[in-house]
Amino acid sequence: MIFLDNASTTKIYKEALDEYVLQSEQNFYNASALYRNGSQVIKEVNKARQNIIKLLGGSSFDNLVFTSGATEANNMAVNGAIRRDGTKLVFSMAEHPSIYNVAKNLENAGYKVEYVNLTSDGEVDIEDFKAKIKGASFVSIMHVCNETGAINDIKQLVRIAKAENKDIIFHSDGVQAFGKVQVNMYDLGVDLYTISAHKIHGPKGVGALYIRKGINLKASVFGGGQEFGIRSGTENTCGILAFNVAATKIVKNQKENFEYVKGLKTAFINELTTDFNPVINSTESCSPYIVSFAVKKVKAETILHMAESESVLISNGSACSSKHTENRILSAMGIDKDTMLSSVRVSFSEFNTVEEVIQAAKVIKETCIRYIKILK
Amino acid sequence: MIFLDNASTTKIYKEALDEYVLQSEQNFYNASALYRNGSQVIKEVNKARQNIIKLLGGSSFDNLVFTSGATEANNMAVNGAIRRDGTKLVFSMAEHPSIYNVAKNLENAGYKVEYVNLTSDGEVDIEDFKAKIKGASFVSIMHVCNETGAINDIKQLVRIAKAENKDIIFHSDGVQAFGKVQVNMYDLGVDLYTISAHKIHGPKGVGALYIRKGINLKASVFGGGQEFGIRSGTENTCGILAFNVAATKIVKNQKENFEYVKGLKTAFINELTTDFNPVINSTESCSPYIVSFAVKKVKAETILHMAESESVLISNGSACSSKHTENRILSAMGIDKDTMLSSVRVSFSEFNTVEEVIQAAKVIKETCIRYIKILK
Repeated sequence: MIFLDNASTTKIYKEALDEYVLQSEQNFYNASALYRNGSQVIKEVNKARQNIIKLLGGSSFDNLVFTSGATEANNMAVNGAIRRDGTKLVFSMAEHPSIYNVAKNLENAGYKVEYVNLTSDGEVDIEDFKAKIKGASFVSIMHVCNETGAINDIKQLVRIAKAENKDIIFHSDGVQAFGKVQVNMYDLGVDLYTISAHKIHGPKGVGALYIRKGINLKASVFGGGQEFGIRSGTENTCGILAFNVAATKIVKNQKENFEYVKGLKTAFINELTTDFNPVINSTESCSPYIVSFAVKKVKAETILHMAESESVLISNGSACSSKHTENRILSAMGIDKDTMLSSVRVSFSEFNTVEEVIQAAKVIKETCIRYIKILK
Repeated sequence: MIFLDNASTTKIYKEALDEYVLQSEQNFYNASALYRNGSQVIKEVNKARQNIIKLLGGSSFDNLVFTSGATEANNMAVNGAIRRDGTKLVFSMAEHPSIYNVAKNLENAGYKVEYVNLTSDGEVDIEDFKAKIKGASFVSIMHVCNETGAINDIKQLVRIAKAENKDIIFHSDGVQAFGKVQVNMYDLGVDLYTISAHKIHGPKGVGALYIRKGINLKASVFGGGQEFGIRSGTENTCGILAFNVAATKIVKNQKENFEYVKGLKTAFINELTTDFNPVINSTESCSPYIVSFAVKKVKAETILHMAESESVLISNGSACSSKHTENRILSAMGIDKDTMLSSVRVSFSEFNTVEEVIQAAKVIKETCIRYIKILK
């Protein structure tokens, strides 16, 4: 089987799973317990915290709260940072449902919410951003789009936002960026940044929210006061330490993997576009990990199932939106409805080989050609 | 080492860890993905859901939402069930911080909140409950107290509450009950019930909220709409399926384990009270899994550290309250301050042996006797 849905989830690294098992067997103590075995566990968790902050390019004064995943971290970022004082909040049209649906909920609750348009490349439209950011107190713009791989120039957006209001809180959803493209908190200048373990060959059920020094979040989960009182609950120590192993490995190899995956993308597109004319929604400047494309006249679900019948697993977009027919992001990019309904996503990981992706492109191309012939 | 802090966390069953590893290696797909490997995963998750509902004695019409743990489930139960209309909420003085601190937060937000007193046995005072439940729309009473093991007669409390207001929503925190004492949703009659995986030899970072048919909860986490839209986020499938294995095993052996652990409790108390006079806070009717006791004149921390130096791990109360000096629960039971400050908790599991608990009781007794001698 050829697994090309790595933006949805990835297979855990052997090293990360080994760490999970080791911690579960030998170090299962409650991190809040007062005896030494407990304090050793929390020490390990705090070492992992500092390590991941460092991997993110943050400073030792910054903080990081472990969560049950990126969805929780995204919810926490928005709900924890905003204050009820009729403030204006800004999001992009491309945000993941775990941001977009929080925004919609706040809009219903009476907040003033604005959504920045996308360019045809899938990036946040800078001019529209400049207009909408005026008067805002909170903004959340994803780093890499999970549907197209479009990379937003977060550094520039932060600069624009902070020039407008130096106290604005800037969050970025870095789920498809961390470990895959270059990510540096110091350089980006964001206040809050979301990352996920299972997107980078770590365990499911673990994520984190980076919190720059000086940013105070309201408690998101009440209880025993773990995670600085922001997110109570017995720490998922085994999951956190496995996440740390995965994060360390993928960041260490980020540049090398990037070049490798760029090669996969090129090989895939070359094969797919040889004697065939799909619409490639992802531009060259997109993250190489994600390619969105459409085969006109063939519905996304059909492409997906034809590929599956030949053991190639791809997606019709984000798994978190898999049940929706309308594609909000492609639509915001100005892509016509026919192309949108025919758009699928392939997403790579370091575990894929060039042979695999060429084989996958062939399968997609050939099954679509056969299908179109039958249609005629 | 003798681990007697099983109310805080437990070592994962080998079978549960094996399941976690198997799922991580062979079945890591996103449960929301549209291809067969994805739908097979969600089918497995739904089978686990139905199985756990059955283990809880619920009906196939009832629901269960998987969470990142009991703290999240407790927060979700309260915040998801209440409606903003100046309603009255009732809690007991013994609730875990993940309920109690939610209650305090709602009190600050303007809700009318009442706390039911405890008897000297640590149970909810029925007369006080009858008085305070009048006019309430939501109530949360824990099943088994995590500090003393006191078992509340939830069935009777539900009957009283529903007679007062048939639409009242009754939640119970069953973290220290499920798999340990008899738990049956049909019999108890609660609307919502919280359980945790890592307290029953399952993985950390997984819990669930049982939701009786007809009870609607507001969304707690926004995103891709997983878990019936109540709790979005990529399902922690590996953790959930490992939880299911642990839950199945412990419920199957519940009665047998109960008798075994009762034997441990008896052996422990017999040894501890031979030629020694500790104050036993936990009565005979308490869950045998938990024994709270005090050695007067010796501070809890001292007992704990003396035991630790002899490789016996016990706790000074709930890990989630380990940093607090005041013990809210013992205080509500009318226990005097000196006894309270000297109170520690031992908690057993099926992994403990009679020899271990006798050895632990000896260690605690002897180190305390030596310590008291030095004091004189």
